[in-house]
Amino acid sequence: MRVSVLRGVGEVAVEERPIPQPGRGEVLVRIGSVGVCGSDVHYYEHGRIGPHVVDSPLILGHEAGGEVEALGLGVTSLASGQRVAVEPGVPCGNCPQCLAGRYNLCPDMRFFATPPYDGAFCEFVVMPTAFVHAVPDTVSDDAAGLLEPLSVGIWACRRGQVSAGSRVLITGAGPIGLVGVQSALAFGATEVWVSDVNPHRLELARQLGAIALDVSKRPIAEWDVEPDVLLECSGNAQATREAILTVARAGRVVLIGMGSNELPLPLPYVQNRELVLTGAFRYANTWPTAIALVASGRVDLDALVTGHYGLDDAEKALTAARRDPTTVKVIVRPGLVPRLDR
Amino acid sequence: MRVSVLRGVGEVAVEERPIPQPGRGEVLVRIGSVGVCGSDVHYYEHGRIGPHVVDSPLILGHEAGGEVEALGLGVTSLASGQRVAVEPGVPCGNCPQCLAGRYNLCPDMRFFATPPYDGAFCEFVVMPTAFVHAVPDTVSDDAAGLLEPLSVGIWACRRGQVSAGSRVLITGAGPIGLVGVQSALAFGATEVWVSDVNPHRLELARQLGAIALDVSKRPIAEWDVEPDVLLECSGNAQATREAILTVARAGRVVLIGMGSNELPLPLPYVQNRELVLTGAFRYANTWPTAIALVASGRVDLDALVTGHYGLDDAEKALTAARRDPTTVKVIVRPGLVPRLDR
Amino acid sequence: MRVSVLRGVGEVAVEERPIPQPGRGEVLVRIGSVGVCGSDVHYYEHGRIGPHVVDSPLILGHEAGGEVEALGLGVTSLASGQRVAVEPGVPCGNCPQCLAGRYNLCPDMRFFATPPYDGAFCEFVVMPTAFVHAVPDTVSDDAAGLLEPLSVGIWACRRGQVSAGSRVLITGAGPIGLVGVQSALAFGATEVWVSDVNPHRLELARQLGAIALDVSKRPIAEWDVEPDVLLECSGNAQATREAILTVARAGRVVLIGMGSNELPLPLPYVQNRELVLTGAFRYANTWPTAIALVASGRVDLDALVTGHYGLDDAEKALTAARRDPTTVKVIVRPGLVPRLDR
Amino acid sequence: MRVSVLRGVGEVAVEERPIPQPGRGEVLVRIGSVGVCGSDVHYYEHGRIGPHVVDSPLILGHEAGGEVEALGLGVTSLASGQRVAVEPGVPCGNCPQCLAGRYNLCPDMRFFATPPYDGAFCEFVVMPTAFVHAVPDTVSDDAAGLLEPLSVGIWACRRGQVSAGSRVLITGAGPIGLVGVQSALAFGATEVWVSDVNPHRLELARQLGAIALDVSKRPIAEWDVEPDVLLECSGNAQATREAILTVARAGRVVLIGMGSNELPLPLPYVQNRELVLTGAFRYANTWPTAIALVASGRVDLDALVTGHYGLDDAEKALTAARRDPTTVKVIVRPGLVPRLDR
Repeated sequence: MRVSVLRGVGEVAVEERPIPQPGRGEVLVRIGSVGVCGSDVHYYEHGRIGPHVVDSPLILGHEAGGEVEALGLGVTSLASGQRVAVEPGVPCGNCPQCLAGRYNLCPDMRFFATPPYDGAFCEFVVMPTAFVHAVPDTVSDDAAGLLEPLSVGIWACRRGQVSAGSRVLITGAGPIGLVGVQSALAFGATEVWVSDVNPHRLELARQLGAIALDVSKRPIAEWDVEPDVLLECSGNAQATREAILTVARAGRVVLIGMGSNELPLPLPYVQNRELVLTGAFRYANTWPTAIALVASGRVDLDALVTGHYGLDDAEKALTAARRDPTTVKVIVRPGLVPRLDR
Repeated sequence: MRVSVLRGVGEVAVEERPIPQPGRGEVLVRIGSVGVCGSDVHYYEHGRIGPHVVDSPLILGHEAGGEVEALGLGVTSLASGQRVAVEPGVPCGNCPQCLAGRYNLCPDMRFFATPPYDGAFCEFVVMPTAFVHAVPDTVSDDAAGLLEPLSVGIWACRRGQVSAGSRVLITGAGPIGLVGVQSALAFGATEVWVSDVNPHRLELARQLGAIALDVSKRPIAEWDVEPDVLLECSGNAQATREAILTVARAGRVVLIGMGSNELPLPLPYVQNRELVLTGAFRYANTWPTAIALVASGRVDLDALVTGHYGLDDAEKALTAARRDPTTVKVIVRPGLVPRLDR
Repeated sequence: MRVSVLRGVGEVAVEERPIPQPGRGEVLVRIGSVGVCGSDVHYYEHGRIGPHVVDSPLILGHEAGGEVEALGLGVTSLASGQRVAVEPGVPCGNCPQCLAGRYNLCPDMRFFATPPYDGAFCEFVVMPTAFVHAVPDTVSDDAAGLLEPLSVGIWACRRGQVSAGSRVLITGAGPIGLVGVQSALAFGATEVWVSDVNPHRLELARQLGAIALDVSKRPIAEWDVEPDVLLECSGNAQATREAILTVARAGRVVLIGMGSNELPLPLPYVQNRELVLTGAFRYANTWPTAIALVASGRVDLDALVTGHYGLDDAEKALTAARRDPTTVKVIVRPGLVPRLDR
Repeated sequence: MRVSVLRGVGEVAVEERPIPQPGRGEVLVRIGSVGVCGSDVHYYEHGRIGPHVVDSPLILGHEAGGEVEALGLGVTSLASGQRVAVEPGVPCGNCPQCLAGRYNLCPDMRFFATPPYDGAFCEFVVMPTAFVHAVPDTVSDDAAGLLEPLSVGIWACRRGQVSAGSRVLITGAGPIGLVGVQSALAFGATEVWVSDVNPHRLELARQLGAIALDVSKRPIAEWDVEPDVLLECSGNAQATREAILTVARAGRVVLIGMGSNELPLPLPYVQNRELVLTGAFRYANTWPTAIALVASGRVDLDALVTGHYGLDDAEKALTAARRDPTTVKVIVRPGLVPRLDR
């Protein structure tokens, strides 16, 4: 099969690899769509994310939808041809975190496109059935792939206890901020503010139902917001600090955006208001919810897609956001390129 | 002022009473709309509900909206003319339940239209400001009154942990079942089934976004439903039992409907699936959420109103449901009658 | 190896079976002690428990401690000779319940001594490492086995939210009631009442720190108890009903005792006080806690042991409670019998 | 009555004031014992704590036990002569925080010894009955006063979800750290580590059941601890940061110690492990638990007392810790001085 490989910083190329074979309890999935994530771009540009270093060729991509191509032994829950979304991490299943249902915290997680594990910029992947989720036809291939970032939004809302009537501030209107908007509304939030400096993204946030705060014009402290929940998606330490200082008593702060090694936490404010701060690291048990939200029309993931690329154009996909500020989410479709005879 | 008084079983009459005076921290509210609740009808028909016996004249009505007419000493949070919704119970504020935020369980609660406390079928009531909630103009007087039953739905959803993607079964499509539908959808439920035998009510449930199950045609066990949450609004012990037997593992059962003294609980099913059952007794801290849901358009309470009556016609209001099966929620408007000179 | 087999109602015999071989990720455990549970006795006396029918020879016993005899491929977390406790159920690991950390609700659980799965009245068992827990030398073999019933107590306390200062009523002073006492105290309960009619058991409850209520002398309603939490361990429907009627507002009821198909639930009481009722079905993620409690001296499981038997005397072990009312927990020790040469 | 007044930085003097009169629902409490808190010392030494400035004479002291001297109108829950503990803050009772049971977050809280509200270094105080808690004779006057700092420990354990088998690290072995030790053990923690540099305090921590970590000898990172819960009682930003880096996945961090305006939060660690951080600001609904723990012997508050002083010696009490490093908790007893004729 054809795969797109990150060979080094700024170097992506298409190669041929053997099609993997599904083992017992696994299926082979033909990839239809793969979303490009900021982490893919970061590996492409820097060759590492924190302790995760790309020191041998790596297939990027972890937001994947497609269809079941073949079944491993003993698989009865899925059928060949079934349209599916891929949950891109396989935890060990045996450690205390896994047994407690927090499999996202499994120290032995094998996660797509995180060295040394390959991702989904390729024609086929093999996955255990527990992480391959059937989707109805009302969910497009692109949306099936984007259930992954939606899962980040859902997980953040769960950790932040967003519920009916919640007032939510989302800092950063990138793809994660925007699925945050959609998730928060789907969880019943009745006021969702989004701060950013990019007018294109703020406009999209507005279209999705949020109140846009252009913090290039006025700092967050000067907007009249007092959220119950802050979903921090900017990764900017100073912006995070300022946003925390708007949160209501007993409010929750979910720290999603990465990038800062140290956050200058305004301790007395956190203490006196008993804010609850936590991280959101990937997600656990979110696909059923994500599928229900998209299938019921409460969340529109296709609205986030701003471009499609074939495998041969993976590099263009990885540089789209850098080249065009109106980019939100681009998709790689391995099937767009001519496939070699197998 | 004019008040409508329940003098005995089946006997309602209009009387004159002095306008009450607001004390420190209280306001005088001019009643605009009062919804008629099943409990009002029950007192009218039977003169009692369980241990609560009407043994002296009682003003019915506890679903009230209106506007602030006058302020007691020290009130600064509300202004004269402010449109408001009345939360119809005043807890003691000092007992362990109150201090823990569960004021609905206060043993010394003074609740509208529950002997010996009068309700709101009258022109004016006095309430402490903590239980008088300002509403925006997007919330009608009728809706302001119906925030009370909506609060029952919201409270039930909180106790049942309804969240994004939840599948919810509601047994009984009366007014509480219908606000349950609207609440469950507002909390993010993606499948809401409602069972009843009244086709008018099932049709309204359908219009509100639910899947209607006509259990006069097929028992609940034969419909293919496996809810995460059951909101029991029928008060029928046998229907409750059957509905419980559909609930998914680790599901929640909220027992709202009254009427049975004993519920034949299918114990092994509850145990093996670790269902969580609980009652929902009134509500606590729901008005801000209820107002946000109505003001944001997520819940439409006016859609439930099927009739309006003046104070002189309170008896007609109390018998409307008995006379007409298409009745859902009727409203008494004290202002519809000519007011005496004061 | 020698195994004790239940061949039919009231018929237990020792047989020879091949020693099982541990597969990848599994270990072979040499059984030191196995506690006899009421369910073992029930299978022995009736050949079934509810839908679970013994229709072919079954090895009983699921409360097992011992030591690691041999390692399967890839096992590094345990070493040969390590003393261990066996968690006697292996869930599928892939279903929604397992992935959510509620593996006790896995519909495909393979549980010791539950048809068709064999238990631990034998010399060796094979288990995946995730369910074989190392114990320190301060935990005896008997106690290692009895971590299983202790887990039931721990799980019940978690589901009932027992915490520092809780007042807990436990109905039934059998082995589960008694581990309930020890668990409740370990969770910080400051008042633990235990009701029973057996004076021997009540005396043991008293020694373990509980206040004994002899309900043969006075019904529960006449004792002055108002628990925050009820741990129902009697399995008697009428006793359960009466005990529920003592629970404080917002209290929790954990239904552990089996035996009734239907519980006559006092609905208005549950509703008006917003009690929370739930089942406790086995346990999940309890062994680390159980080991810490015993190793720290907070729980004394050896105090519950009233007799030891070899494999050849398994039948005597199964009938001990019937023969002697002072019996609490008896232990089968496969090593007490002469082992055949292997 | 005689009162001890803080007139300015470092200046405390005894004055005469009229005995206050209890109003409706209030009682007059004769103060038996008042613990000296670090905040009292801080006001004495600096004249302010953050935004709270002592700009007129202030009575210090908020850890008070005593007995009911007189009853206001309508009081039936307490009797004259009843021994009591005083919960030293009176919330408004009407704001969203109060109604939600989080009265510690009430913005209109009137709290003892916090400007402009006087405290309990005096012979009598008046309080509403809801905040005057009867204690049994097994609770000494000193212990009745020290239920206040114990409440801080209890609240911290609740917010940190300490439960049976928890492993808890407490940074700082001052009075709050030490009640933290006792609370954590009472909540069922099986390993409690305490870090400090003061050998006297570490020894006391050891006597109370903790494992003492002398971080003057070895930094926290080099001790082999991986707590589920961190109770931060040092108020030292750097120590807090280092301690956070030991917390287990999904662990909780309760930030109790004050003193830093900014905490350098190690963001990736918090995110990747999904730690939950929160403040503990005073407490809510803790006295019943505190009384039960002391009365049952699970917590020994008298063990923390290292000195007693009369009102005239309040200054000595406030400087005791500065003068003597073995000081833990000193008590002011207004009754130790000759009382004037009333």
